[in-house]
Amino acid sequence: MTEFLPNHPAGQKVILLNGGYDATDIFTPIHPKGTIEKYLPAEKHLGHLDGEAPIRPKKVDPFEDERLDNLDHLPPLSAIQNIHDFEYLAKNILPIGAWSYYSCGADDEISMRENHYAYQRIFFRPRVCVDVSEVDPSTELLGSKTSVPFYVTATAMAKLGNPGGECSIARGAGKEGVIQMISTLSSNSLEEIAAARIPGATQWFQLYVNEDREMTHELIQKAEELGMKAIFITVDAPTLGNREKDRRSKFSDDPNLDLGKDAQRGSGASRALSSFIDCHLNWDDIIEIKGMTKLPVLIKGIQRVEDIFKAAEIGCSGVVLSNHGGRQLDTSPPPVEVLAEAVPLLQKMDKLKPGFEIFIDGGVRRGTDILKAVALGDNKVKVGVGLGRPFLYSNSAYGEEGVRKAIQLLKDEVELDMRLLGVRNLNELNRNFVDTRRLWSGKEAEDYLYHRNYEPIETVQFRRDE
Amino acid sequence: MTEFLPNHPAGQKVILLNGGYDATDIFTPIHPKGTIEKYLPAEKHLGHLDGEAPIRPKKVDPFEDERLDNLDHLPPLSAIQNIHDFEYLAKNILPIGAWSYYSCGADDEISMRENHYAYQRIFFRPRVCVDVSEVDPSTELLGSKTSVPFYVTATAMAKLGNPGGECSIARGAGKEGVIQMISTLSSNSLEEIAAARIPGATQWFQLYVNEDREMTHELIQKAEELGMKAIFITVDAPTLGNREKDRRSKFSDDPNLDLGKDAQRGSGASRALSSFIDCHLNWDDIIEIKGMTKLPVLIKGIQRVEDIFKAAEIGCSGVVLSNHGGRQLDTSPPPVEVLAEAVPLLQKMDKLKPGFEIFIDGGVRRGTDILKAVALGDNKVKVGVGLGRPFLYSNSAYGEEGVRKAIQLLKDEVELDMRLLGVRNLNELNRNFVDTRRLWSGKEAEDYLYHRNYEPIETVQFRRDE
Amino acid sequence: MTEFLPNHPAGQKVILLNGGYDATDIFTPIHPKGTIEKYLPAEKHLGHLDGEAPIRPKKVDPFEDERLDNLDHLPPLSAIQNIHDFEYLAKNILPIGAWSYYSCGADDEISMRENHYAYQRIFFRPRVCVDVSEVDPSTELLGSKTSVPFYVTATAMAKLGNPGGECSIARGAGKEGVIQMISTLSSNSLEEIAAARIPGATQWFQLYVNEDREMTHELIQKAEELGMKAIFITVDAPTLGNREKDRRSKFSDDPNLDLGKDAQRGSGASRALSSFIDCHLNWDDIIEIKGMTKLPVLIKGIQRVEDIFKAAEIGCSGVVLSNHGGRQLDTSPPPVEVLAEAVPLLQKMDKLKPGFEIFIDGGVRRGTDILKAVALGDNKVKVGVGLGRPFLYSNSAYGEEGVRKAIQLLKDEVELDMRLLGVRNLNELNRNFVDTRRLWSGKEAEDYLYHRNYEPIETVQFRRDE
Amino acid sequence: MTEFLPNHPAGQKVILLNGGYDATDIFTPIHPKGTIEKYLPAEKHLGHLDGEAPIRPKKVDPFEDERLDNLDHLPPLSAIQNIHDFEYLAKNILPIGAWSYYSCGADDEISMRENHYAYQRIFFRPRVCVDVSEVDPSTELLGSKTSVPFYVTATAMAKLGNPGGECSIARGAGKEGVIQMISTLSSNSLEEIAAARIPGATQWFQLYVNEDREMTHELIQKAEELGMKAIFITVDAPTLGNREKDRRSKFSDDPNLDLGKDAQRGSGASRALSSFIDCHLNWDDIIEIKGMTKLPVLIKGIQRVEDIFKAAEIGCSGVVLSNHGGRQLDTSPPPVEVLAEAVPLLQKMDKLKPGFEIFIDGGVRRGTDILKAVALGDNKVKVGVGLGRPFLYSNSAYGEEGVRKAIQLLKDEVELDMRLLGVRNLNELNRNFVDTRRLWSGKEAEDYLYHRNYEPIETVQFRRDE
Repeated sequence: MTEFLPNHPAGQKVILLNGGYDATDIFTPIHPKGTIEKYLPAEKHLGHLDGEAPIRPKKVDPFEDERLDNLDHLPPLSAIQNIHDFEYLAKNILPIGAWSYYSCGADDEISMRENHYAYQRIFFRPRVCVDVSEVDPSTELLGSKTSVPFYVTATAMAKLGNPGGECSIARGAGKEGVIQMISTLSSNSLEEIAAARIPGATQWFQLYVNEDREMTHELIQKAEELGMKAIFITVDAPTLGNREKDRRSKFSDDPNLDLGKDAQRGSGASRALSSFIDCHLNWDDIIEIKGMTKLPVLIKGIQRVEDIFKAAEIGCSGVVLSNHGGRQLDTSPPPVEVLAEAVPLLQKMDKLKPGFEIFIDGGVRRGTDILKAVALGDNKVKVGVGLGRPFLYSNSAYGEEGVRKAIQLLKDEVELDMRLLGVRNLNELNRNFVDTRRLWSGKEAEDYLYHRNYEPIETVQFRRDE
Repeated sequence: MTEFLPNHPAGQKVILLNGGYDATDIFTPIHPKGTIEKYLPAEKHLGHLDGEAPIRPKKVDPFEDERLDNLDHLPPLSAIQNIHDFEYLAKNILPIGAWSYYSCGADDEISMRENHYAYQRIFFRPRVCVDVSEVDPSTELLGSKTSVPFYVTATAMAKLGNPGGECSIARGAGKEGVIQMISTLSSNSLEEIAAARIPGATQWFQLYVNEDREMTHELIQKAEELGMKAIFITVDAPTLGNREKDRRSKFSDDPNLDLGKDAQRGSGASRALSSFIDCHLNWDDIIEIKGMTKLPVLIKGIQRVEDIFKAAEIGCSGVVLSNHGGRQLDTSPPPVEVLAEAVPLLQKMDKLKPGFEIFIDGGVRRGTDILKAVALGDNKVKVGVGLGRPFLYSNSAYGEEGVRKAIQLLKDEVELDMRLLGVRNLNELNRNFVDTRRLWSGKEAEDYLYHRNYEPIETVQFRRDE
Repeated sequence: MTEFLPNHPAGQKVILLNGGYDATDIFTPIHPKGTIEKYLPAEKHLGHLDGEAPIRPKKVDPFEDERLDNLDHLPPLSAIQNIHDFEYLAKNILPIGAWSYYSCGADDEISMRENHYAYQRIFFRPRVCVDVSEVDPSTELLGSKTSVPFYVTATAMAKLGNPGGECSIARGAGKEGVIQMISTLSSNSLEEIAAARIPGATQWFQLYVNEDREMTHELIQKAEELGMKAIFITVDAPTLGNREKDRRSKFSDDPNLDLGKDAQRGSGASRALSSFIDCHLNWDDIIEIKGMTKLPVLIKGIQRVEDIFKAAEIGCSGVVLSNHGGRQLDTSPPPVEVLAEAVPLLQKMDKLKPGFEIFIDGGVRRGTDILKAVALGDNKVKVGVGLGRPFLYSNSAYGEEGVRKAIQLLKDEVELDMRLLGVRNLNELNRNFVDTRRLWSGKEAEDYLYHRNYEPIETVQFRRDE
Repeated sequence: MTEFLPNHPAGQKVILLNGGYDATDIFTPIHPKGTIEKYLPAEKHLGHLDGEAPIRPKKVDPFEDERLDNLDHLPPLSAIQNIHDFEYLAKNILPIGAWSYYSCGADDEISMRENHYAYQRIFFRPRVCVDVSEVDPSTELLGSKTSVPFYVTATAMAKLGNPGGECSIARGAGKEGVIQMISTLSSNSLEEIAAARIPGATQWFQLYVNEDREMTHELIQKAEELGMKAIFITVDAPTLGNREKDRRSKFSDDPNLDLGKDAQRGSGASRALSSFIDCHLNWDDIIEIKGMTKLPVLIKGIQRVEDIFKAAEIGCSGVVLSNHGGRQLDTSPPPVEVLAEAVPLLQKMDKLKPGFEIFIDGGVRRGTDILKAVALGDNKVKVGVGLGRPFLYSNSAYGEEGVRKAIQLLKDEVELDMRLLGVRNLNELNRNFVDTRRLWSGKEAEDYLYHRNYEPIETVQFRRDE
């Protein structure tokens, strides 16, 4: 391992700390199957261990007993009423490291929260006296059928919350007719997740571009071969955001330790994922990568109207308006505000390729949120809505069945809300159904469920006596 | 009962759970007299029970003693100062199921709360040096005299809070010269409520349109025969809203039970009411129903200006701007905002039938609220204001006398406020008396009484050990 | 007393309750000297009492010991830093009835609080590099010199908080060169207060117009004879506002008692003051009353721009923009917002009499508030600022010396703020120094001191077991 | 000392109170070395003390033990994640007097807080697909190189928090390539601080103009000789602001004492600094002072656009938009709002001297804040950002190493944020990258870290029994 130390994406510390110990529990949830075989040359595989290696003793977490007790008392799925319920459960059953990694945002987590609140500054303009005996929330996204206008967006490290990882999400989504976008940084391998695909289901591939374009090319080819239907190139993470909650939690098992350089900025659990991402990535690269595949290529992480135009001009099939769930640049704009601003401008764009689609993610928790985003599109620009954390949380608590329940709840909400809005299918939904006057002026009603689940960042603490 | 099971509007569960038990206490407050006779064929009436059936044992509610003690210590009516006081008392004396049903809204209850707060973003422009020795808040609504510009709007299941049900509301309102709108889903039969009408009092009928038009026709005829003076067709409830607080409370007596499908979405106490409502209802149906009666027909549940125009065009006598007290589609707009937007546009509508009236309900708690709504009307469009929950609460605590007291308090406020505004009768009141600049920009002062009575929704809870 | 009962302005109850008891402690703080002689015919004076009458036993107030202990531990005046400090002390040393009467507003007390908060939505535009070695906050108001641009506005019942009553306020204000406006409803007689006037000091008279114009005429004549320099006719109180906090406190000594009609709306301590006020009062009456005196006549209680114009047109010397400290009509506009709107419109009014002055009161707590109001005036319209409650509070805690201290603090703040604004005298101050963009859009920073002193209204309480 | 008493800038009280005691601990942190020699004539130096003088006994601070314990448990520097962490630590380890002096603002501290919150009402418009492998946050300010676009602004009395005083800040800043502005009121002498300068580092001098222009001339000459590179004349403090938190803390060691005149307005710790400042200072004086030096002269404390124009017209090299950290005039505007308003107007100013620079300070806590301010400048007007309190706090807790860490954290944030914004150097950053629509309309998301550290002002307290 000595030679590999300087190249470990997550830093040397975690390896050194665990030297001589059995690190399986730490290694597995972060690294997809085959990682060792792929990155560690065969000659370093020195043989099998006789006996058992000890596990590094950890500080006792005073909340661990409570957490395990909670795990034993999960309510039946039938008691779950909404997406917030899953978050509440996840918060109380996940190991602190997993919860912090999933729930954290950047800096003061303003964008993360505004992503959600912005939806509540949009009000509906419902239409009555419409025969809504039949409503149909199904649509096509990038040419694939979906039972609803939302999809599971790419998130990393699903195994942190559930050993089923991204595979159980794949099964849950597939069974409900919902598209899954798969992260380059999944904790299951792409092969595993593709194998978990339900027949007829659609999967998309989220791509972090590697500095080594050959590796990227191979990855795209593999995605194609494994039946992915579109490539989403993430561009909002040339470096990882300043996720303080996550970083602090990582080292919370020993607050008195002087962690030195390694514990600082950019060395948290998040950082473990970042080394493979090419920070040189620019529009020319996008064009080059587009040339590597016949699949639709989209840009994920657009945060201003001008960049939507650029993506359209170079022939992308669409964009994802996203600030990475508020995990990258704090006080970047809530995607739904960018959407509200963009669509009227896109309508005036002559050269817009027919079929250009806009996706949006971040902060979506309710059927109303989904319908608001869809309503902001128009006949020229179709809108699809991505949710990430809600599926990590439901998967963490209940696995595949949790994912299905989360989708069912949202689908129920979407159908119910369509009836109450007076729209029978998504083509009927347009900007006339929403009132965006409050968007930039500021205040929304208190959202008790969201607020209750949100845990503010903590300041540093004084050392404790042993 | 076995054959009837699948047709029970509130689902099978409640029947199965109570099989072999005396269900009178559960049945009576929800079903008007004659329900069994009407819906259960004569041959199923198998005879009288010998002896007494046991009552299904319930989980002990730890707050039940406190609730009963509160009931014993209701303050004298003279101690009540405002509408909020009734809500405070109701919250502390009602069984949890009744309180949840009355007080709940949809989803995150944002519309429910904004309905109220929107009034506090409207400020007055009072006029001084006017002889206000005599002020007269009386007016005519749909041609009927009323002592005040507000009415009791239709609400279901008054018996949940008080065995006097809608009848005691009828007596209270009638004695105070206030119009009552009666719900299709009253817990008293229409005959009973009509019989409770004070001579000279006015009652209107709120109609849920049944898929079986013949039944609807009969209902309208009965309403006419019983002396109802107008028909209000509710159109904002083609399906029932997602009322989580209510649904959760219903099953709170056994949190460890896996309730299966039946406990899920749309199976709460609210759902018990929904099966009779036709979700095909459209404008053509409205025209058809209008043809069934010579009474004025109005549309209840309008939420956008365009639909007011449509109602006027097909010859309706008016509309009720309402989002069903925030119980249907969350983030639908506060009615008073729709009103503020609509009236200037209606003034420009050439074909508007003289005498077209706009009603508004949701969130009204003060005389000032009532006068703001009335002031937003004009000489072409008269405005009347409906209140629902306040009368459920006052009726729950004190019955008929509570309803009268609530009306007196509001009437006193209205008269007092008219004096302080410098208007002697409602014709003098117009848009010049209100400042709506803050309406869509956002913030209102803290409303302590309202806020204190409001109970946020809870997330799901972990199972408890027995 | 039996014959007088129905004519007692404060209702019969308080007399009946105290029949056979010594009511001196209740009578004195509310009624100016000479009230009995004036209103009770000589033949009813039946002679002197032998021995002592008992005092009606009161419920023990659990906080009374704490209150008396607080009184014994008032901090030295030198520890007082700002106007909020006086309010904090008053709240903790005043009998609940006095505190409630002084501190209450109408309905939900929204206007009362917005009166204050509106000032904090105005920001300054300070000017630097001005020689501010000498700053002079003195000015003339209605032709009388004043050391500062603020005055003590009229408030009733100063004796409730301090036996020195309005007289000690008169002495405190006079010694600091500040004008005092005296209420028709003072607890000291006008003669007493005039006698307490410091030589050279200015007093104005606030007039409630009586239905009996002859009484009003006599009152004005007496005011003239006693050297008052202006008459302010209050027009925002044709009836008294709905002051729930005050009414509830009045009857709080016996919560279990059914108080009947008498305890209801408009029967609180506030109501005691209202019977003398003519609710017929209109603009013609104002003209008539203006004819009764050569003193400047101003209208107090204007709440919309149109009424400023009317007052100017009929030749008034000015107006007071006021909503009676938020005690009359709730959600009437904060006076400083009316001022900000009015002055630019007044500038365009050709016929505006030179020397027309605008006064403003309500919510003023800081030197910055005072300067903001003055800055909103201009060369055509001078602005003076009234404060009421702060002087009741300072007088309650420390009497005359407290009033002086309060004035000194405000004067110090005004001088300091003028230096920091870069204005040497009030003529230099104009609208260019303030930024009103945030006024109607909504949010202000948290004001901790104000908020901490504010006590929200309570709902009704359940009866307690004895 | 008797003769000197009336001339002591901080008042007589503190000298009288400490008569006969050893006052070293009180004297040293406030007065730079050489103060006694400079201001006390040689003939008053009466000789050395035999033995030790006693120290004046102080009231026991109940929190003193906790404070000292905290000092013993400072976390390692590697645990610090952001600027807020330093503030949290400082708050818990500083003596109350030092904490109050550093953290206080004027009046209700609204400007102090809005300074910070205003940044969070600005959102970014990030640009993607830019090669950000190399980002360079370095720039020149007033012709001096700096590794980042921010500098350490002038603050007084660094020794209150750390005996290393301004010197340890000088070393920390210099080692990180950051410019330091040095206060006239430093607790180290200018000579000492200049001597602590790292070779190649830049220092600027902040000048309070003395009434005695000769002294000012000498001070400027000394600054020149000591290698200061620019002179910033502070103009927002012709008198000191009303800093109540600081004043109250000063006398908190004996709440029962009647402190008389001396404890009142303007006699707090802050006032100790004020006597040397000339309140006559005007634009002509500025021109005169500019003539005394060839160094660039800038005006610090500008709060309106017009005064930027004036400074430019008389040939200043730039201005600092500042309200003195909210310590002078409360409700003066947040500097970033003035900046947002000013730059478009400056662009239209024909005569603007090339190279005119705008600095801004107050409320800056994050790299995002810094980049927002810089983005509001343009090619004509470069913007530099000053931070004061963060370096007092980091210096108080960890001395020079703390200052370095604070700079490193901010530099890391700036670099990270540049990458995420898609800008490689500061020339690329412009107004297109920020959205200021929310600036004056009002609301920002809750800032938990800032809020948690903020301590609201307290009201006066009742005396306590001994």
